[in-house]
Amino acid sequence: MFWHASVHHDGSYVDNLYPCLGDTVHLRLRLSDRAPVRRVYVRLFPDGEQHFIPMTPAETRPPIKWFACDLPITEPHVHYRFLLQTDEGIWWLTAAGLVDYEPLDHTDFRILADYHTPAWIHASVFYQVYPDRFANGDPSNDPQPHHYEYRGHRPITLPWGAPKPPNSAFTTTFYGGDIPGIIQHLDHLEHLGVNAIYLNPIMEAYSIHGYDPIDYEHVARRLGGDDALIQLRRELDRRGMHYIMDIVPNHCGFKHPWFLAAQKDTSAPEYGYFTFTHHPDDYLSWLGHQSLVKLNYQCADLRQRMYEAPDSIMRRWLQPPFSADGWRVDVGNMLGRQGSIQMNGSIVKGMRRAVKEAHPDAYLIGENFFDASAQLQGDQWDGVMNYMGLAVPLWHWLRGYQNGAMGMPEQITSPIPYPTHALAATWRARHASLPWSILLQQYNLIGSHDTTRIRTVVNGSEALHRLSATLQLTYPGVPALLYGDEIGLTDQPGWGAVVCMNWDQSTWNRGLLDHYRDLIALRRRSTLLQRGGFQMLATEPDTFAYQRDNADSRMIVVAHRGTDPRPAGALPVWHGGVPDGCRFIEHFSGCEAVVEQGALHLPELPQGATIWEQI
Amino acid sequence: MFWHASVHHDGSYVDNLYPCLGDTVHLRLRLSDRAPVRRVYVRLFPDGEQHFIPMTPAETRPPIKWFACDLPITEPHVHYRFLLQTDEGIWWLTAAGLVDYEPLDHTDFRILADYHTPAWIHASVFYQVYPDRFANGDPSNDPQPHHYEYRGHRPITLPWGAPKPPNSAFTTTFYGGDIPGIIQHLDHLEHLGVNAIYLNPIMEAYSIHGYDPIDYEHVARRLGGDDALIQLRRELDRRGMHYIMDIVPNHCGFKHPWFLAAQKDTSAPEYGYFTFTHHPDDYLSWLGHQSLVKLNYQCADLRQRMYEAPDSIMRRWLQPPFSADGWRVDVGNMLGRQGSIQMNGSIVKGMRRAVKEAHPDAYLIGENFFDASAQLQGDQWDGVMNYMGLAVPLWHWLRGYQNGAMGMPEQITSPIPYPTHALAATWRARHASLPWSILLQQYNLIGSHDTTRIRTVVNGSEALHRLSATLQLTYPGVPALLYGDEIGLTDQPGWGAVVCMNWDQSTWNRGLLDHYRDLIALRRRSTLLQRGGFQMLATEPDTFAYQRDNADSRMIVVAHRGTDPRPAGALPVWHGGVPDGCRFIEHFSGCEAVVEQGALHLPELPQGATIWEQI
Repeated sequence: MFWHASVHHDGSYVDNLYPCLGDTVHLRLRLSDRAPVRRVYVRLFPDGEQHFIPMTPAETRPPIKWFACDLPITEPHVHYRFLLQTDEGIWWLTAAGLVDYEPLDHTDFRILADYHTPAWIHASVFYQVYPDRFANGDPSNDPQPHHYEYRGHRPITLPWGAPKPPNSAFTTTFYGGDIPGIIQHLDHLEHLGVNAIYLNPIMEAYSIHGYDPIDYEHVARRLGGDDALIQLRRELDRRGMHYIMDIVPNHCGFKHPWFLAAQKDTSAPEYGYFTFTHHPDDYLSWLGHQSLVKLNYQCADLRQRMYEAPDSIMRRWLQPPFSADGWRVDVGNMLGRQGSIQMNGSIVKGMRRAVKEAHPDAYLIGENFFDASAQLQGDQWDGVMNYMGLAVPLWHWLRGYQNGAMGMPEQITSPIPYPTHALAATWRARHASLPWSILLQQYNLIGSHDTTRIRTVVNGSEALHRLSATLQLTYPGVPALLYGDEIGLTDQPGWGAVVCMNWDQSTWNRGLLDHYRDLIALRRRSTLLQRGGFQMLATEPDTFAYQRDNADSRMIVVAHRGTDPRPAGALPVWHGGVPDGCRFIEHFSGCEAVVEQGALHLPELPQGATIWEQI
Repeated sequence: MFWHASVHHDGSYVDNLYPCLGDTVHLRLRLSDRAPVRRVYVRLFPDGEQHFIPMTPAETRPPIKWFACDLPITEPHVHYRFLLQTDEGIWWLTAAGLVDYEPLDHTDFRILADYHTPAWIHASVFYQVYPDRFANGDPSNDPQPHHYEYRGHRPITLPWGAPKPPNSAFTTTFYGGDIPGIIQHLDHLEHLGVNAIYLNPIMEAYSIHGYDPIDYEHVARRLGGDDALIQLRRELDRRGMHYIMDIVPNHCGFKHPWFLAAQKDTSAPEYGYFTFTHHPDDYLSWLGHQSLVKLNYQCADLRQRMYEAPDSIMRRWLQPPFSADGWRVDVGNMLGRQGSIQMNGSIVKGMRRAVKEAHPDAYLIGENFFDASAQLQGDQWDGVMNYMGLAVPLWHWLRGYQNGAMGMPEQITSPIPYPTHALAATWRARHASLPWSILLQQYNLIGSHDTTRIRTVVNGSEALHRLSATLQLTYPGVPALLYGDEIGLTDQPGWGAVVCMNWDQSTWNRGLLDHYRDLIALRRRSTLLQRGGFQMLATEPDTFAYQRDNADSRMIVVAHRGTDPRPAGALPVWHGGVPDGCRFIEHFSGCEAVVEQGALHLPELPQGATIWEQI
């Protein structure tokens, strides 16, 4: 009997995910009631020494039975796995799955002690706004050629949505979007159902993207200045919405006064903020871009100024009158790293301490396209922009390898999409690398200003766009839309993802917008989706199904990428603990289905995703 | 065509395993010349950002071809993996194997910059001596009842090898073994071929095992005192042999003057060395054993005294006149860990700095029965006692789960041995968690004073004992015998593994001794075994085969656990890069075999291990 797939545990089977040091939590393990399992133990590692706690057989409710035990939280980071003594030998369950040999620790389940999660984060759905391209609320602040010159170009402001003129510089070609524009369109966000905003950089800078700051203390005048942000905060409060800002502590613009002072005088206090290979013109910069000057965190004064001191940059924006609800930290993967100097961990830990001191409920995420698990163990980021954990594998499954903003040479492409088992394996490995409490906080995007828009990823396919949105809104973690995805914006030549928001509602994809609204509403009312368990139930060549479950209910999400429909037929669900006779209703269509002989009997499924809610 | 198994890389395919920061090393990747691979890239992560280097097709020598590239060593710890663009989509090779989805970083290949490996370690074969039970060279220092009382017992010294009297205390029942006894038997070690000794604790202590030190500064009088060790050092120098000592920095004996002072007076400087829950009688101890008092490394003075100061304990033994060649650090897994205080990493890093300053060629290993990979990234241990990586999976494969000294409850046993694929998966996962340079330094034991002896593990089977020895001596890492294993000593009731060495040569298992001598000589003369590559070539239900290879030669080790012989037949080896026509000679029997159609055609193989050396 193939009982192995039924053995399941995740953080949702822990009665208290946020214990204090010294507390005891209650763990449960679920498996088939026919599994040849004699005894189950939890394997712990208190103070570095192996320790086993026997689990007690708890409830049996065919087709499953439960084992349970209490787990003492004796240190800040408790990791554990399960040992199953069976008639087929010893098996081990970790977050990476069930194996018949002793695993290493890095896939253990993890619980953080004394860990505070931002109270508002689980019920949030984010909306990313790239300020210049969202809405122009105040044309009087639009950048004009006489305002400045920057790297041989002068700024221009184009009419909203006008095509990019030939030879215009990307970084100084504006559309005039600003914070007043955001304020004027908060009704759209509220109607859509999102309740948190991530703002791309708004600090003073010469470039449109703002990733070359010249003043960490003030909002750019072209965006409305400090007063506009204070007004935005007021409006968000009125609507019960949150916002986080984008900070660029890895580097500053080469016109930043700190750098100008350092270039001018090697005895300036700011000289130590940078790394000159040959003063004043040769210095470390971000990936060799000389306009983005790398900051050197070996310098204690810089650390003070950026995050440590009570009036430091990263603290003050979290306090009135701006009262931001957190930070997205740019290139969080590279921060504090420069060859022989590798202090990323200590810098991010320091930022965390500072940010949480200033605002305990702040949400602190890092940009990281890669494996960020070392930064996601509770003492650094609350989460990262989850390219690696959600978006990238999904893109690969939908369209094969194409270029993202991930340092891949152009020629590394492949038209062959991920096998479905590869998607499942990727997600599983990502889950296994994180504490469950962190997984629930990941900033789950399926596209950003740095990538291809999802609508373009799927080649304009309405069905695959909806499928992607359905996964994004039902996956563990915090969903985060990119402005305009809800109406079907696509990438445009010369601009990529950061096109102007389309405010001509007569041209909107209303069906798509309704799909998003429906999903966002479902997400926001569903603690199951916000904090429930996750188990992959099936992988077929073009189809997969996962379950979200808690004590009261479950949903099964079925995604099908094939252009031909998945024929009507059985989807095995018994190993998810779903009993025969259990009935489900499909969220979008209202169609019903029943579990018989361990399988959910599904109708024909066209390309797209369906959500089966247990009745 | 199943080309996937042919894609191989390990640290032996790096032209310089010990580069300096700023150097460039040359990497090679091997795969089938028929693999549908179009391009190969090395994926790097300099300063936290993904970077790809295209590899160049190098030599093709059917059945294989090579790709190669230069790799810049830009930071202290460089990790990399390979991306293969193929007609079957994108594949990735990490040290954990080839997968069709993007892996996380923790299984990347790793290179350490500016890393110094003890010059003598690769060519060494260790021999562990438990001093009281090896040889009594000076009866005048034997412990007598009038010498002291300890925990209600007085010491006795029994005649060599006499059975344990009923009710005698394990820890104070001696046989009188001492350092003079070791010196008198160095000819045996030299004849055997070992050239390094690991000495169980020799510092002053009341218990036989010495893990309750009362003086970190002197050799126990019962073992001959400081002078005996100085003489041993002289004798070892004469024979070109090394020795390492055992230190117990995690705890001290409750009769240690430090603890007595701390118990007496809370203002004593040593008060801070310990953690009193209720002074003077309640305090933290090792796993609750009140005679082993936990040392608290939050105390700066303790750190100074133990390892930081120029005259600290861990430094002085490495200097004349004792000139030890390194340390085995007791319970290295628990050091500096006590609930909310988790400073294991920083303590071990500090110990490493101190030890390497005092003696750059010192070998520093930790006791760690578990996943020690966090301690094995180049900045902590040179290696650990490799229970987890070699011994334990081998035991499980040979005899199923039985109890070791690993905190497993008595009832966690299973008579069902590891499937062979589980052994292979375990070894692969262990390799993938370490830099190759560390793997080559692991202290590879198959039994110790803390476990069942290998002869007892295999239930006295001569064939399985020889198989185990053959694996131990041909596996990557430093082989380390337990005294007496070479003559077939078994565990004894009441004593376990630490039985008295048998000096009655007429009763020795001469065949086994010759087997060990032969293997040790092979190992010591073979750079292939010391530093060559490692690839598992085959796993069958009761048989596996691995290859050790370098540019000039290869060996294939075939291990068969079945009581029935493996029938004569083919063993596929093409994916190891072995061409047709290649001839091998078996090391023990002289039997020859040839590769045809990608497989080595082997004769019938009885239970045991064979070594096939390429001619």
